[in-house]
Amino acid sequence: MEEYYMNTALELAKQGEGQTGSNPLVGAVVVKNGEIVGMGAHLKYGEAHAEVHAIKMAGKHVKDADIYVTLEPCSHYGKTPPCAELIITSGIKRVFVAMRDPNPLVAGKGISMIKAAGIEVKEGILTDQAEKLNEKFLHYMRTGLPYVTLKAAASLDGKTATSTGDSKWITSEAARQDAQQYRKTHQSILVGVGTVKADNPSLTCRLPNTVKQPVRVILDTSLTIPEEAKVILDQAAPTWIFTTSQADAEKKKRLSDFGVKIFTLENGHIHIPDVLKILAEEGIMSVYVEGGAAVHGSFVKEGCYQEIIFYIAPKLIGGTHAPSLISGEGFQSMKDVPLLQFTAITHIGQDIKLEAKPKPVHE
Amino acid sequence: MEEYYMNTALELAKQGEGQTGSNPLVGAVVVKNGEIVGMGAHLKYGEAHAEVHAIKMAGKHVKDADIYVTLEPCSHYGKTPPCAELIITSGIKRVFVAMRDPNPLVAGKGISMIKAAGIEVKEGILTDQAEKLNEKFLHYMRTGLPYVTLKAAASLDGKTATSTGDSKWITSEAARQDAQQYRKTHQSILVGVGTVKADNPSLTCRLPNTVKQPVRVILDTSLTIPEEAKVILDQAAPTWIFTTSQADAEKKKRLSDFGVKIFTLENGHIHIPDVLKILAEEGIMSVYVEGGAAVHGSFVKEGCYQEIIFYIAPKLIGGTHAPSLISGEGFQSMKDVPLLQFTAITHIGQDIKLEAKPKPVHE
Repeated sequence: MEEYYMNTALELAKQGEGQTGSNPLVGAVVVKNGEIVGMGAHLKYGEAHAEVHAIKMAGKHVKDADIYVTLEPCSHYGKTPPCAELIITSGIKRVFVAMRDPNPLVAGKGISMIKAAGIEVKEGILTDQAEKLNEKFLHYMRTGLPYVTLKAAASLDGKTATSTGDSKWITSEAARQDAQQYRKTHQSILVGVGTVKADNPSLTCRLPNTVKQPVRVILDTSLTIPEEAKVILDQAAPTWIFTTSQADAEKKKRLSDFGVKIFTLENGHIHIPDVLKILAEEGIMSVYVEGGAAVHGSFVKEGCYQEIIFYIAPKLIGGTHAPSLISGEGFQSMKDVPLLQFTAITHIGQDIKLEAKPKPVHE
Repeated sequence: MEEYYMNTALELAKQGEGQTGSNPLVGAVVVKNGEIVGMGAHLKYGEAHAEVHAIKMAGKHVKDADIYVTLEPCSHYGKTPPCAELIITSGIKRVFVAMRDPNPLVAGKGISMIKAAGIEVKEGILTDQAEKLNEKFLHYMRTGLPYVTLKAAASLDGKTATSTGDSKWITSEAARQDAQQYRKTHQSILVGVGTVKADNPSLTCRLPNTVKQPVRVILDTSLTIPEEAKVILDQAAPTWIFTTSQADAEKKKRLSDFGVKIFTLENGHIHIPDVLKILAEEGIMSVYVEGGAAVHGSFVKEGCYQEIIFYIAPKLIGGTHAPSLISGEGFQSMKDVPLLQFTAITHIGQDIKLEAKPKPVHE
């Protein structure tokens, strides 16, 4: 039954997807004498945590009850008082936790507080599922860097256009629509300035119920972005540009005055690890990299990605000079090429979606 | 029950896979009063047809029985007497046929003969499955050209090697092993001379129970194949070379004397449709094209393929100059690129296998 209740808590947690900003998704279930008496989830950044909702719903039944929480209860005063304290004062008898919170402000302190109050704590129920639920948040907390997803679309032979540059369309409308969901589940969308020049995209999430638009991040070494680009003019989401000392100072000022945030990197070129470090400092926990091929090439060469989402169309384009999915320098030796693992394969209309992640070292 | 018995006949037919040479796979089931009394399959080129085995097994029970056959019974004297005649003289009462035989020597004549003898014939049971069973044979009979399967292996970003040419190995041993099965189910394996020079492959099927090795077909415009290549020296299977007037006459003679069959095309270059026409005339019903990229490019540009089998490794190689799956001229405009459809996606070890076919026009 422990797994059953924890699973319910995980399902509750998922409902907050895309609404909790930099907070993790958390669900909680209060159980008394084999009956669920309270349920809660963290739904909105700055508002009540899952435990608060669940304990409130349980009311008087909370006395001597069990609580199942998908993430270690917090021990610190943030936007809300610590949940560990609430659990202690509520009269709860046992606490079941799926996993510890790697946030250095918590990191076991919540569990210690509860145990110190004489309450029984059991850890490790459905930990893998809880990890998966907050993989971006957990990666950010553990590494101090954003979780990076590379997205691309190509023909079956890995081409993104014909040799003359015709690329409309490789994949179907269904695949292009599917790719929108990831704009909602990432805090930022990153493209090279070439993509802005070629397609003038708005880079916003057009799905309904998009509470918060992701930050639009443009890599632009020489600051050649057209000032009339949609990402500059439409004010539909924040736009941040990474550039270098090659950028024209006056153009920088004009763009800044217009509300664009500009980061000027020191060493003359845009080094991806530097970009990610700055994004992390700005509180960005996840980056959805939409290309083009040169940008993907830089992320791949630096090994800066946690997930790959590739849409493959059932077409053979051919052409020695037709552009490929990933350009740039590439690896020279097969032994240097990191091994990934396919995590999902899905039919999307006439196309397929391949998802892959770096293969864990311990496997 | 009709479908049940026909399905049994189809399962019997499959057992002859790779053993019947240029003959189709056929299965037959004799049913009397709801009991299967005879079963047969065509197992070996030149030996008894499915109906003969099934009727023989049924013995005296054949009188007034039903027979289920996956392909129209033959009406002509070939290596064996016509099955239509056997059915008529056997005393069978009803004949169930999955599909007509497109072989111009039969093509409805078998069914007509049986009907003319006053025996009831029902057609169209599990036709799609029967079509699938003999798709290569049927394609050859209907078009007069071999059935072509393009096989390739690449990284997730469509590369077949790094920019320095390192390609050992893109896919896993499991995928390379899986690809062997198609050498068994095709009558010929085709590669460009570049593949022979680069890898010196034996191009034989190394699976157990390989009754007949496929013909090795090499495309070699200037006849530059090394005379010490395995495909020349090992005598493990027939080797046929397609070349042009650029070939050195003495080398042609030496290779011919050594048992290599040489086809010299007229117009100075190797035009794929000409190659397929000649292979068809030589009785080759199926071609397994293993590359390289230029050869695949020619088949793709000419639209000369019925099936694609691509192995994709979970690796990102990158590199603007790393070789792609398909080279050559390619298509210029997206509207000229034929739409395929994915027919199967399979995990093979750490890799995946994508199968696709040209999308039927009527869909």
